[in-house]
Amino acid sequence: MVNASDLEQAQLIGLDWGSSSLRAMLIDAQGLVLEMRASPQGASTLSGGAAGFSRVLDALIDDWRVPGLPLLACGMVGSQHGWREVPYARCPANAATLAAGALSVDWRGLPLHLMPGLRCDTAAGVPDVMRGEETQILGAGVAQGCVILPGTHSKWAQVVDGEVRSFATHMTGEMFALLRQHSVLGRLMPAQAGEDPAAFAQGVLAARDQGGLGLLHQLFAVRTLGLTGQLPHASLADYLSGLLIGHEVRAGLASRQYDAPLVLIGEPALCRRYGTALEQFDSGPVPQLPNTAAAGLRDLARLVPGVL
Amino acid sequence: MVNASDLEQAQLIGLDWGSSSLRAMLIDAQGLVLEMRASPQGASTLSGGAAGFSRVLDALIDDWRVPGLPLLACGMVGSQHGWREVPYARCPANAATLAAGALSVDWRGLPLHLMPGLRCDTAAGVPDVMRGEETQILGAGVAQGCVILPGTHSKWAQVVDGEVRSFATHMTGEMFALLRQHSVLGRLMPAQAGEDPAAFAQGVLAARDQGGLGLLHQLFAVRTLGLTGQLPHASLADYLSGLLIGHEVRAGLASRQYDAPLVLIGEPALCRRYGTALEQFDSGPVPQLPNTAAAGLRDLARLVPGVL
Repeated sequence: MVNASDLEQAQLIGLDWGSSSLRAMLIDAQGLVLEMRASPQGASTLSGGAAGFSRVLDALIDDWRVPGLPLLACGMVGSQHGWREVPYARCPANAATLAAGALSVDWRGLPLHLMPGLRCDTAAGVPDVMRGEETQILGAGVAQGCVILPGTHSKWAQVVDGEVRSFATHMTGEMFALLRQHSVLGRLMPAQAGEDPAAFAQGVLAARDQGGLGLLHQLFAVRTLGLTGQLPHASLADYLSGLLIGHEVRAGLASRQYDAPLVLIGEPALCRRYGTALEQFDSGPVPQLPNTAAAGLRDLARLVPGVL
Repeated sequence: MVNASDLEQAQLIGLDWGSSSLRAMLIDAQGLVLEMRASPQGASTLSGGAAGFSRVLDALIDDWRVPGLPLLACGMVGSQHGWREVPYARCPANAATLAAGALSVDWRGLPLHLMPGLRCDTAAGVPDVMRGEETQILGAGVAQGCVILPGTHSKWAQVVDGEVRSFATHMTGEMFALLRQHSVLGRLMPAQAGEDPAAFAQGVLAARDQGGLGLLHQLFAVRTLGLTGQLPHASLADYLSGLLIGHEVRAGLASRQYDAPLVLIGEPALCRRYGTALEQFDSGPVPQLPNTAAAGLRDLARLVPGVL
C-alpha cells in the first residue's frame, strides 16, 4: 500500500510506458519521485487494446487513484499499437508544442493524458522518430545542448533555446544484441564473462582511427581477433561494444549542428561506457543523468490545459 | 553415372567446399567444368572429423574415382573444424605461395590436396582471413585489379602483378540476413516481395550521399520510411540491401590502395546488384564473372608438387 504522506505530497502520477516496460511514478511539485513501481508489461507485450492497458494500471497503482491527482504518460503507450495513437509532434518542438499535442484516454473515470512522440525529417526527407525520449530531454532542463540517450535505439538530440531542433537515432543497442545472439561473431563469446575495459577501449579506438574502413568491415575483426588469439574470447563482447559505440559517437559528433555542451541521460552503466568513449574522442567529461522522465512529465503537466 | 568421355577429358577433380555447401567439379586442362555436382553438406554441417568428410565424397563422386586423376579442394574444408586444418598463407601471396602451403588427406587410398586460406594483417595489426575466395581470385586471371567477391562475408582484394597484396572482409550479406530475420526492421517486411530496383537505388544513394551520418543511424530509416508510408513495405528489403551494399562500396572504394580496374566475381544476381551500386558511385561498368574456383584449382594443381 502507498504511504499516506507520499500520496498527500504527490502532485502527479507519471507513467514512462515504453515497449518493454512500464515505470509508474508518484511525483511531487519539484519533479522528484516519491514512489516508483515497475512492471514488465510494456506496450509491445500488451494486446486487447484499451482494456489491456487499463488492467495493467488496475494491478499496479490502484491505491494511487485519487480524484484530482492528474495522470500523464509518455512513450510507446501513445503509438499506433498503444492505448491510443497520439500523432507525432514535429521538430522544432518545446514543452508547449508537446503539451499541445497530448490526447487523453479514460482509466475508470479518470483522464490519463498521453504525450505525443516527436518526429524530425532530414533535408533529404528521411524521417526519424522518438517516443518517450522527448520527455526525458525536457526533464534534463538543458537550454542549449546535445543530449545523448544511449539504448536499444540511441538518440542524439540538438537542443537550442529549450527547443529540440533535430535528432538522430542510432540502432547501436539492438545491433549489439543481434550480433551477439545471432551472428558468427557471437559464437566465440562465452555466455558469462567479466568486463574488460581495455578491450572496450580498443574497440572505440578502432572506430575512431580506422572508422573510414567501414563498420561492416571492422565488425569482422571481432571474429579474427578471437580466432588468432589476439583477444581472449571473454573480451570479444566488450570489443564489439566499443566498436559499435565508437561508430555511433564518431557519426554523432561529426553531424553535430551546434557547438553546445553534451549531456548523457540513461542507465548509469551504459552512460559510463558512452562517457568513456566520448573522452577517447576528446569530448569529455560529459555530465551523466539518470532517467529524467519524472521531471519532464512534471513540466508537461503544467502546460497541458486543465491538468495542474 | 559419369559420362565416360568427360572422365577421359578430365584433368582434375576440384572441390569448392565452403561452410554451407560443396561443389564438386570435373575440370579439363583449360579449367572448364565438364560436370558439376552440388551437395548441401558444407564443412560447418559435418561432424565426425575425417570420416564424415570422406563419406560425403563417397556418396557424391564415387564414380569419379580414377587412380591418377588428382583431387584438389579449397574452402572451409581446410579450416580448424574441417577435414584437416591447413594454416593460412600470408599476404602478399600468389598461386605458388598458396600451392606451397597445401596439405593432403587420404580419401580411400587417393590423396586429396587441401589448399590453404589466406590471411592479411592491417598496419594496425588487425587480422583478416579468407578460405576459398583466394582460389576464385586466382581463377579470375587478373594481373592488376581490385577483385570484389560479394556474399555473406564479401571480400575486396587488391591484386598487383598476380599477387594478392591485401584484402578486406565486409559482413554485408550476414548483416542483411540478421536485420531481415531478427531485427525491428524485418517486422515491416512481407515474407514474399518482388524486386524494387528504385528502392535499392535509393538505399545506395543514401549511403553515397549521407554515409557520414553512420550506418547505425541510417538503418533506422528502413523502419521510419515504412512507418510513414514513404516506401511500401514490400520495398523495404531492397532499400536495406541498397543501404548495406552502398556502405560496403563506399568503404571499399575509399580504402582502395591501387588504381587498378574493378572485377566482380560471384552469384550473377548479387553481382548485378553490386554492379548497379558501383555505377552509382561512378565506378562502372564493372566486369562480372561467375564462380571462378575451377580455373583457380586448375592453376594451383600445376604448382602443387607431384599433382600434374
